[in-house]
Amino acid sequence: MYVVILAGGSGTRFWPLSRKRTPKQLMSVFGGRSMLQRTIDRVLPLQPKRILVVTNAEQASATAAQLAFVTGVPLDVIAEPVGRNTAPAIGLAAAVIARHDPQGVMAVLPADHFIADEESFRGALRAGVETANNGYLVTLGMTPTRPETGYGYIEADRSYRGAGPYPVRRFVEKPNLEKALEYLESGNFYWNSGMFLWRADTILEEISIHMPALFRELDSLEFGAEIWELRDLKPQIEAIYGQIASESIDYGIMEKSEKVEVLPAEFGWSDVGSWSALPDLLDSDGNNNVAMNDTRLIAVDATDCLVNGNGKMVALVGVNGLAVVNTDDALLVCPLDRAQEVKKVVEELERQGAKELL
Amino acid sequence: MYVVILAGGSGTRFWPLSRKRTPKQLMSVFGGRSMLQRTIDRVLPLQPKRILVVTNAEQASATAAQLAFVTGVPLDVIAEPVGRNTAPAIGLAAAVIARHDPQGVMAVLPADHFIADEESFRGALRAGVETANNGYLVTLGMTPTRPETGYGYIEADRSYRGAGPYPVRRFVEKPNLEKALEYLESGNFYWNSGMFLWRADTILEEISIHMPALFRELDSLEFGAEIWELRDLKPQIEAIYGQIASESIDYGIMEKSEKVEVLPAEFGWSDVGSWSALPDLLDSDGNNNVAMNDTRLIAVDATDCLVNGNGKMVALVGVNGLAVVNTDDALLVCPLDRAQEVKKVVEELERQGAKELL
Repeated sequence: MYVVILAGGSGTRFWPLSRKRTPKQLMSVFGGRSMLQRTIDRVLPLQPKRILVVTNAEQASATAAQLAFVTGVPLDVIAEPVGRNTAPAIGLAAAVIARHDPQGVMAVLPADHFIADEESFRGALRAGVETANNGYLVTLGMTPTRPETGYGYIEADRSYRGAGPYPVRRFVEKPNLEKALEYLESGNFYWNSGMFLWRADTILEEISIHMPALFRELDSLEFGAEIWELRDLKPQIEAIYGQIASESIDYGIMEKSEKVEVLPAEFGWSDVGSWSALPDLLDSDGNNNVAMNDTRLIAVDATDCLVNGNGKMVALVGVNGLAVVNTDDALLVCPLDRAQEVKKVVEELERQGAKELL
Repeated sequence: MYVVILAGGSGTRFWPLSRKRTPKQLMSVFGGRSMLQRTIDRVLPLQPKRILVVTNAEQASATAAQLAFVTGVPLDVIAEPVGRNTAPAIGLAAAVIARHDPQGVMAVLPADHFIADEESFRGALRAGVETANNGYLVTLGMTPTRPETGYGYIEADRSYRGAGPYPVRRFVEKPNLEKALEYLESGNFYWNSGMFLWRADTILEEISIHMPALFRELDSLEFGAEIWELRDLKPQIEAIYGQIASESIDYGIMEKSEKVEVLPAEFGWSDVGSWSALPDLLDSDGNNNVAMNDTRLIAVDATDCLVNGNGKMVALVGVNGLAVVNTDDALLVCPLDRAQEVKKVVEELERQGAKELL
């Protein structure tokens, strides 16, 4: 198995802790190792043939620096000159792998997800390999544990097979609560995790069918004789990215392909999509306050808050449900249930040209 | 006129910006000069004979350092070994003045109040001198402009005199809103400002009547032959403070003496009693947010907040009426209408023995 790690996140949702140069995947959200490093740690026991980390030029050196610890498994960092969403990144990795091992199975994993039960996670990947080998696009569907309105869902056709994988009836966008409850009760819906397994030639074939323009660019890459010598590719990648449109693999391929199978899995997963995801994933005190990174917290009638003090003592008096995030140069105060709006702060900083804070 | 400035505040209400060593009066609440320095600036045009600043041993050197700018008017810093509330501090200053000029009129002024119209303030002090010379205890009563429940009130007997000063009927504690409205409408009530004018011998006489234990200690001080050589007093002051009980001048003298007159005044006054006092005294933006000390603020659907960034960019999303106060080592988030509870944080820090944060 090859492992392709998508590590090109833009670092806006966890502002001010995440920045363009240190996005979420490079952050130590849970103390100690970064999310990217934890993602690598999780797959190393699978003994992958090779790990390809796809990131962007701005984050490439910080990404490579964090991966110096990896030994025993060959690892490449591929830098996109600009982010073009997931489809081009995955296509590029598939083209590289296919050049060397066309029928090689690749696991595609985001670098910034939380996974509680790592053994179950590896078990799910192992379980999907056979289906991938048979020429299917396998997507990991998380068995929902609550009527979550923050995730997209995948409806499976569970009519004729036991434990899956199942054929996919449809992909559905983030639902409202009523729909989410319906999905949860039906038993046929899974959270769309953005984790995939397929053969390199399978996904390239599907790209050629559903995203022919992207396929033409990928097909134009000329690889050198030297196996895995990716440095020579850099100018070619820069050239083709000028022609490549931004598109997600979900919209570009998964929602259109007839080869998609969903493999149910349950291993305590979160996409850690915003500050509001963290209280469920971190230890809290008796007042349900989460003090990140050893923050020293005094809470006077304050509950359900998430606090990152950045070495500073934080005193909360009479507030509830707030994210209070301190960094060296910026401070955010925002209700956790409005954490999606942090991007408005980032947009305002961009408007002001405050690059030092982005 | 002599000016006695009470500068021994303990620095808990404006935590974390104020600390034991840098209490409110030494803070630059309004940008630029500290509240103590502004208090001095306000009285210098009155050309006082002498200024006595009473503080405590812990704050004495910081206090003296802030007063190095004063020229042309003799100024002494008297350090109490421990704070014993206002009556001993005022009695001590009166004893010093009386040693040199028994009938000298002294204005007693807190070091940490806000005054908008400084010319009116000086006019009020000048207007009270005659009454003080006649042997009365003159207290400045602020004409109330709103039904404030955070101040004590003074009821005047306005039955037989024009513009005042008036005899005092009674002092009343902080009222509830209903009472405060009643006081406001009656026209006979004034806010108790804690600013006084009297002759040194008058207040000492009243102390001898109403606080005989304090008088005995003050009366035991032996002054050297050298005029205003206060250094020699230090060991004596330290000795008598072991015997002196803590008491406010209001409770110890003003509420009991029959010589009290209230002089109505109106010059835009605030005792700046907590964070919640500041929004009315500082400039706000279009969303009614106050960014203290040139704080760079981004407010996304956030209103009525008071923010001190301490050089840091502060982003508020979807919050209202909060105080967000950042300092080098601590951060406070508290609704402005619960700012009185900041003292609970200070108490908790004391309980934890966190002296570095007090």
